[in-house]
Amino acid sequence: MASAPKIAKSSKTKNDALDEEAEGEKFIHQQDAIEKIDEVQNDIDRLNEQCSDEILKVEQKYNKLRQPHYQRRSEMIAKISNFWVTAFVNHPQVSALLNEEDEEALQSLTKVEVQEFEDVKSGYKINFHFAENQYFENKIISKEFHLTETGDPSSKSTPIVWKENKDLTKVRSSSGRKRSHSEQQESFFSWFLDHTDAGSDELGEVIKDDIWPNPLQYYLVC
Amino acid sequence: MASAPKIAKSSKTKNDALDEEAEGEKFIHQQDAIEKIDEVQNDIDRLNEQCSDEILKVEQKYNKLRQPHYQRRSEMIAKISNFWVTAFVNHPQVSALLNEEDEEALQSLTKVEVQEFEDVKSGYKINFHFAENQYFENKIISKEFHLTETGDPSSKSTPIVWKENKDLTKVRSSSGRKRSHSEQQESFFSWFLDHTDAGSDELGEVIKDDIWPNPLQYYLVC
Repeated sequence: MASAPKIAKSSKTKNDALDEEAEGEKFIHQQDAIEKIDEVQNDIDRLNEQCSDEILKVEQKYNKLRQPHYQRRSEMIAKISNFWVTAFVNHPQVSALLNEEDEEALQSLTKVEVQEFEDVKSGYKINFHFAENQYFENKIISKEFHLTETGDPSSKSTPIVWKENKDLTKVRSSSGRKRSHSEQQESFFSWFLDHTDAGSDELGEVIKDDIWPNPLQYYLVC
Repeated sequence: MASAPKIAKSSKTKNDALDEEAEGEKFIHQQDAIEKIDEVQNDIDRLNEQCSDEILKVEQKYNKLRQPHYQRRSEMIAKISNFWVTAFVNHPQVSALLNEEDEEALQSLTKVEVQEFEDVKSGYKINFHFAENQYFENKIISKEFHLTETGDPSSKSTPIVWKENKDLTKVRSSSGRKRSHSEQQESFFSWFLDHTDAGSDELGEVIKDDIWPNPLQYYLVC
């Protein structure tokens, strides 16, 4: 066809007409094949959804089965003074976020709980339980991550009720303890104010996926 | 205790002895707690393994269930000329790897198959089926990725039997078709020779996780 002379449609030869017909038929066959691929694709998509649902059910089942063990682990951990602050200090990534006063404040951290939400996919919450301390009034400070109805990641935290002049997320006035004159006070607790990385919160994910599954290994590395 | 005078062990007072005893008891209690945490951790680890096993079984079941659909999809795709080369050219990441002659050679690609190995975790294999073409003798060229017994990732490929002067992975001699004088011929087919990224082979993962689950969407984007 490439070398055939261009001719007006009205004057086409019998061969051209046959070729066009063949081309047309080929086109119809291909369209038909595409539709069938699309149907098969729908079947595959349905199977993928069923597969995800079944995996979700397995995860939910084991989340429930793990609960009493986590409970018991928390009870044992509570018997060890400074367990959590030690584990945090020994964890390379978390340690980098801790200044001296953070460590002092975290000595009152008695319990950490990671709760995966029922449907797993939609998020998780980390509860930090504190004993009476000189920094804040809260007994529990939480940060949670979830997907909004539109599928966007979002996070929220318990507001921290700081004691007077004890807000570790704020630069201390010169009347306070002597400090370097950095503009912004970097503190572990600033993480509770930061909701910019709700979709992939580094500290949240380190606690959930790395420390929580086995905190003892970080407590013992010292 | 901090302000107590330092005294030799032999002359310690009754209070010091009591404190030491208390310290010793605390130490024993903490050791005991650590051992119990370790036991609980073993229970959790066992549950995690069971959970992974169950998820693996679900994935294996659906891998089997998807097979006849993939089979039927391949049959339909075979009816559309240039389906795979079109999908590859329309895929932004794969397209970047294709030179003109690659595209020509890939016009003879009639079938792509992704096989996840039975235990899923251990790897996958991609089979590329070709019609008779001017570049190589192979009817099938495969690349597979798996973990060795030591857990290290590794990959291997079918050796390509190039026709004379047609090796697309080699710089063409000046007697060949006119080309730019680049030192290294960049070609899609060089991927079959490259086993440096077996653990996270970008093209392999794009084909397995992005194109294979729904190639029609890339075929139709044109």
